[in-house]
Amino acid sequence: MKKKKKKIVLAYSGGLDTSFCIAYLNDHDFEVHAVSIDTYGEFDSETEGNLKKRALDLGATSFVKLKALSHFYDNIIRFLIFGNVLKNNSYPLSVSAERITQAFFLQSHAKKIGAKYIAHGCTGAGNDQIRFDTAFQILAPELKIIAPIRATNFSRKDEINFLKSKGVDLLWKKAQYSVNEGLWGTTIGGSQTLTSHQPLPEEAFSKMDPHKEPQELELSFEKGELTAINGSKKEPYELIMGLNNLCRDYGIGRDIHVGDTILGIKGRVGFEAGGPLLLIKAHHLLEKHTLSKWQLFQKDQLSQFYGMMIHEGNYWDPVNRDIEAFLIQSQRFVTGKVFCKLQPKQFDLQGIKSKHDLMKHCMGAYGEKNLGWTATDSKGFINITSLSNKIHQKINHRS
Amino acid sequence: MKKKKKKIVLAYSGGLDTSFCIAYLNDHDFEVHAVSIDTYGEFDSETEGNLKKRALDLGATSFVKLKALSHFYDNIIRFLIFGNVLKNNSYPLSVSAERITQAFFLQSHAKKIGAKYIAHGCTGAGNDQIRFDTAFQILAPELKIIAPIRATNFSRKDEINFLKSKGVDLLWKKAQYSVNEGLWGTTIGGSQTLTSHQPLPEEAFSKMDPHKEPQELELSFEKGELTAINGSKKEPYELIMGLNNLCRDYGIGRDIHVGDTILGIKGRVGFEAGGPLLLIKAHHLLEKHTLSKWQLFQKDQLSQFYGMMIHEGNYWDPVNRDIEAFLIQSQRFVTGKVFCKLQPKQFDLQGIKSKHDLMKHCMGAYGEKNLGWTATDSKGFINITSLSNKIHQKINHRS
Amino acid sequence: MKKKKKKIVLAYSGGLDTSFCIAYLNDHDFEVHAVSIDTYGEFDSETEGNLKKRALDLGATSFVKLKALSHFYDNIIRFLIFGNVLKNNSYPLSVSAERITQAFFLQSHAKKIGAKYIAHGCTGAGNDQIRFDTAFQILAPELKIIAPIRATNFSRKDEINFLKSKGVDLLWKKAQYSVNEGLWGTTIGGSQTLTSHQPLPEEAFSKMDPHKEPQELELSFEKGELTAINGSKKEPYELIMGLNNLCRDYGIGRDIHVGDTILGIKGRVGFEAGGPLLLIKAHHLLEKHTLSKWQLFQKDQLSQFYGMMIHEGNYWDPVNRDIEAFLIQSQRFVTGKVFCKLQPKQFDLQGIKSKHDLMKHCMGAYGEKNLGWTATDSKGFINITSLSNKIHQKINHRS
Amino acid sequence: MKKKKKKIVLAYSGGLDTSFCIAYLNDHDFEVHAVSIDTYGEFDSETEGNLKKRALDLGATSFVKLKALSHFYDNIIRFLIFGNVLKNNSYPLSVSAERITQAFFLQSHAKKIGAKYIAHGCTGAGNDQIRFDTAFQILAPELKIIAPIRATNFSRKDEINFLKSKGVDLLWKKAQYSVNEGLWGTTIGGSQTLTSHQPLPEEAFSKMDPHKEPQELELSFEKGELTAINGSKKEPYELIMGLNNLCRDYGIGRDIHVGDTILGIKGRVGFEAGGPLLLIKAHHLLEKHTLSKWQLFQKDQLSQFYGMMIHEGNYWDPVNRDIEAFLIQSQRFVTGKVFCKLQPKQFDLQGIKSKHDLMKHCMGAYGEKNLGWTATDSKGFINITSLSNKIHQKINHRS
Repeated sequence: MKKKKKKIVLAYSGGLDTSFCIAYLNDHDFEVHAVSIDTYGEFDSETEGNLKKRALDLGATSFVKLKALSHFYDNIIRFLIFGNVLKNNSYPLSVSAERITQAFFLQSHAKKIGAKYIAHGCTGAGNDQIRFDTAFQILAPELKIIAPIRATNFSRKDEINFLKSKGVDLLWKKAQYSVNEGLWGTTIGGSQTLTSHQPLPEEAFSKMDPHKEPQELELSFEKGELTAINGSKKEPYELIMGLNNLCRDYGIGRDIHVGDTILGIKGRVGFEAGGPLLLIKAHHLLEKHTLSKWQLFQKDQLSQFYGMMIHEGNYWDPVNRDIEAFLIQSQRFVTGKVFCKLQPKQFDLQGIKSKHDLMKHCMGAYGEKNLGWTATDSKGFINITSLSNKIHQKINHRS
Repeated sequence: MKKKKKKIVLAYSGGLDTSFCIAYLNDHDFEVHAVSIDTYGEFDSETEGNLKKRALDLGATSFVKLKALSHFYDNIIRFLIFGNVLKNNSYPLSVSAERITQAFFLQSHAKKIGAKYIAHGCTGAGNDQIRFDTAFQILAPELKIIAPIRATNFSRKDEINFLKSKGVDLLWKKAQYSVNEGLWGTTIGGSQTLTSHQPLPEEAFSKMDPHKEPQELELSFEKGELTAINGSKKEPYELIMGLNNLCRDYGIGRDIHVGDTILGIKGRVGFEAGGPLLLIKAHHLLEKHTLSKWQLFQKDQLSQFYGMMIHEGNYWDPVNRDIEAFLIQSQRFVTGKVFCKLQPKQFDLQGIKSKHDLMKHCMGAYGEKNLGWTATDSKGFINITSLSNKIHQKINHRS
Repeated sequence: MKKKKKKIVLAYSGGLDTSFCIAYLNDHDFEVHAVSIDTYGEFDSETEGNLKKRALDLGATSFVKLKALSHFYDNIIRFLIFGNVLKNNSYPLSVSAERITQAFFLQSHAKKIGAKYIAHGCTGAGNDQIRFDTAFQILAPELKIIAPIRATNFSRKDEINFLKSKGVDLLWKKAQYSVNEGLWGTTIGGSQTLTSHQPLPEEAFSKMDPHKEPQELELSFEKGELTAINGSKKEPYELIMGLNNLCRDYGIGRDIHVGDTILGIKGRVGFEAGGPLLLIKAHHLLEKHTLSKWQLFQKDQLSQFYGMMIHEGNYWDPVNRDIEAFLIQSQRFVTGKVFCKLQPKQFDLQGIKSKHDLMKHCMGAYGEKNLGWTATDSKGFINITSLSNKIHQKINHRS
Repeated sequence: MKKKKKKIVLAYSGGLDTSFCIAYLNDHDFEVHAVSIDTYGEFDSETEGNLKKRALDLGATSFVKLKALSHFYDNIIRFLIFGNVLKNNSYPLSVSAERITQAFFLQSHAKKIGAKYIAHGCTGAGNDQIRFDTAFQILAPELKIIAPIRATNFSRKDEINFLKSKGVDLLWKKAQYSVNEGLWGTTIGGSQTLTSHQPLPEEAFSKMDPHKEPQELELSFEKGELTAINGSKKEPYELIMGLNNLCRDYGIGRDIHVGDTILGIKGRVGFEAGGPLLLIKAHHLLEKHTLSKWQLFQKDQLSQFYGMMIHEGNYWDPVNRDIEAFLIQSQRFVTGKVFCKLQPKQFDLQGIKSKHDLMKHCMGAYGEKNLGWTATDSKGFINITSLSNKIHQKINHRS
């Protein structure tokens, strides 16, 4: 009598690692349900068909593609924009935001089909295992996590040999760069990013046109959210996809991120995230015109923390819901247009227009005679604001 | 019998405003001692001679130029670099840092020559009056402050007429842009910056060469301070002057700053600060390799506050000394080289080398089998770090 | 023909200062509408009648008492509780919170009756003028502010003489202590609080019973708000009034606050605020059981800032609305009971019960064999969390 | 031929757990060097003799007591005072501060005697294992850590049986309360602290005298450090020991701490820490008189973080050195006397005297005519500080 196979949901990308996982899990009495989560938006039906065919060929019982873009935007990206979150002042957290969303969809699918197991293809060395496992443990503690590569500690070669032993002899071309593409940016690892001093070469990035003509762009925001480009309204995530494509042609948004992995070691990774960078910078400029000094200050302080939480996969800590409430409230007047200019490898923000622009009040008055206050007011203000340090100086430095 | 004139020290730049001040103060029974503070570094002897001649012609009793570059660097710029301070994430606080230094030198000179009065040419509408007055009140409360333009509320035309009435009929050409040049950057105001939506045109900035060949640059840091460019050692402020000149040719470091003036209204001003921006970004990259995650985090939080204090002229609040102690201590391992590449209108940071590079330990190990920990460790770490939110979820969302 | 009098709304308390204001304003062609704002709750009809009689006798055209307790609680006190706000870790901001509410009602009344002027009895030396004027200027910039005592710089004696000259010869007994009573606490100034070293004597505080028997108290909270005492439900502000009375008998909640006035000088003032202190401490204890570590941490950081804003009368900065959104969201599980014990001059918090108690999960397990994780997990956690500092130590201190 | 025993250093307290460890390690071919670290100060020679006898009887090769008080104070307690650190606003971090110091001495002793192994008696369930292991791994990664109780998961009964099997049949009386005494406070666990609602009974605390006469106390501080009590100078740690004894007689400093363990679960523990609490509150009062508003604010924000780091055993993160530099600098004027009054179960702070008292300047002026500024200054100050919110209100709420 045949032993009943255990139902397992696997995060499947079609690459060597997760292909190995299908074969390995199959070999260990699991009924594998492969899931691809679309957090990218460029996932066409041909790609989907190929993925499905490969998954089933490798022994999966089912394959499904889940659309996650809208959820991804609503639950994470939106807040990364509100907070102008750039890790270490440069990296838009492309991967971590994505993993959290993928993990959410995976455990949700596992519950739906009644699986008791859930699997991912991460090693035991990096950030992603933590983001996946943390989400699974918190949202679905009843699921048992299987991570075949972490468990076996198999190398790339080990994986290929295992697949061969199962009769799978595909061509797994070793890419020169390991690339992760998503709505919120593309990350690029290579031999250079394993050093501290080498930049990534041009070829590591997507193709750009160095002679592309400059163009102007008008981004419309409502309560902090991107609602239109050049007047054309779409869903925010669709607009972001558009920005990504446009920036890619200009080679805008390339950089190298250096930072602390969740495990505590330093890591370095290239990225290309034109859409996110342009969007965050434009949003921030609109905020500079529409928020108070203290809103800008406190938002920055909180958002830096929020970014750290997202980076480290601590998305489910309730403090994040509190910060999100702060961020939503802060955006109530962040409505208006931002004028940008794209050029090869750079963009400029030209200015903004907003009915909530706090600068409007004073147009024409800067540096000139001003109706809002008098010189006497200024002197009074100065006398009072100097008072505490005047006393401090007198008591501690002049007696 | 002639009434004895009252000795006054005046901040003198040679422009219309401070020229008017000499004549005005002269006319009000003051013996004017004009002082120019060199916080720029490009102040040659011809410029100095011209300034002196004009001051004396206008009726000043004495003129002196005070070298402030080294003091400026040691007491403020150094900490702005340690803190990677960019106001609203873009502006290096070029003017405020300078005013604080100038104010310090002015009151010090007044004490030295036994003046009982001190004067500046600011209006009652802007930030600079606050920075000057605050410094004077705290450091030299015994000095009486005279601000002729604030007091009279004279317009440009009023000033010219007053000068004419005193027999001074110079050509005061009205510049299209009001420019303030200093070691820590140049600011540029124009009709465009009085709007929210217009960028400054090319001509508002200093001349650049759009076809200048790219070049690589090696910046050496010791304990957070720039000590050499391409191996050539100089004083930090001399190196910054060099960077400024270099970046100017490339058109690097141009932007528009939007922010809150001390008085509470929004202001917009163009700037060109290639040296400061390149230096801060390079310094920050070195820190990402040599500081712990929590050092980077807390430094950012504190430095944002420090920048606000400097911007608002609150330099003398003792909390700044505490933050500076933090910053100095944080720099003890920020030693190494940063590799940059300059191109027209942009620069890239290629990488770093440092014996304190915390990434060195793990070279070659990222994403591969790792000696520092095992998969079991990772799982233990994940189990424990998930625990609190697992409990939270169970108690609040699943019961 | 008689000149039409100008309508003015005056904050009226019945004391010498505001009585003088009625007479003074009357004398300066104002039609005075006296307003008493009840932010105390012990304002009975006799008191109200006496106040009204005196106001009209002094020449006021109308007198009205406005009930502000519910608005006071909803708009400020509630958030001070959510944030556990104690200025300098001791003072519940009794007066500032009250002034902001009073100012709101005053300007609202002025608009209602079509007054173009608004008045208060503050001097030019303290915090309250700032809180009043700031509110008036922001909420009703069309109103002209008159502050007779600030304008005249009259002393107490000057005021009495002025009143006599107008035929008012009441007995203005000089209280030994200047007392301000409100729902959120009573402040007490005296000759002692003008020194840095003298405590307030027993007599400066309200009467207590040193032999009063201890009693236990059960405080019920729902989403951070006090909803019942010993099971008896009332409006939060009524419950606070009850706590105040109870604590007063025990002499609970007395202390001296030392802090920075808005003007920048240090100030010292006694206070008695048993209700606020008991409530905040009980609320905080419930939070320690129901919030995550990071919620507690970030709430503390934000609330300290929020308290500073309220203290300084900056209530209308929009950043406060953002923080309030954070605070409301943070309270969603702060529901349960807190057990207190009152004794003469002290109270103890005995413990809490809550269905959201995050400690419940682990009951009985502390320090014993635990089901949530294994020793292997602990070791893994330790290995990983030590990693970054291990590398730092190795690279910087051991090579 | 006999196998050579492996040298191991063991943290030894004389209790059942660490006594078991000696026997267990002895049984596993270790040569046990027992170490008791004096972080308490009440460690007399009789106690030491008894400890030594028991250790050797149990099979230890050597026993040594290490004096750690001065190091404990200089490296941790001092900064907890500077920062007024009370975890969750109540608990002075009595245990964590101590464990970090003990761990430092243990690994240092191990290095000194050439041991390759190091042991502690912690279970796998609590905070202390993390504090010990973290310190060992960072400071002495070459040492192998052995934690017999964590490894065996033995219960109390298992331990006693093991000891009996080795011929040790001592009377291990099960204390009703588990008590940890140290210089920085005593913690007390009991059946009550495993619940959320039960207080600890009187008997759980040390004996006090409810009728003890009140007494006044004068605490002298120099640059933030306690230097004398009632004029009598001693080392700070000796003064703290004195305060502890005094407060114990009054029953001062008892409370229950509720907070997050490092592992992420909530914990509850009683404590008695009269000395630390009195000292911190007195120190804070002196700071309120001698520090600027922003110093108080930023110190609080940083210190809360510092306390979290110490609590979690993250003492060696370099960010703590940066914060300590901030704290030291902040104390430069925290010099003066604080007057306290002790009574049964409570203490009052009466006031302070200091030549750096920033309130001195304004003595007698509060609420009266003031020389430092005029009513015109106040109005100017108000006009300017209201400006930003006035504009915000106008643009967003009134148009």
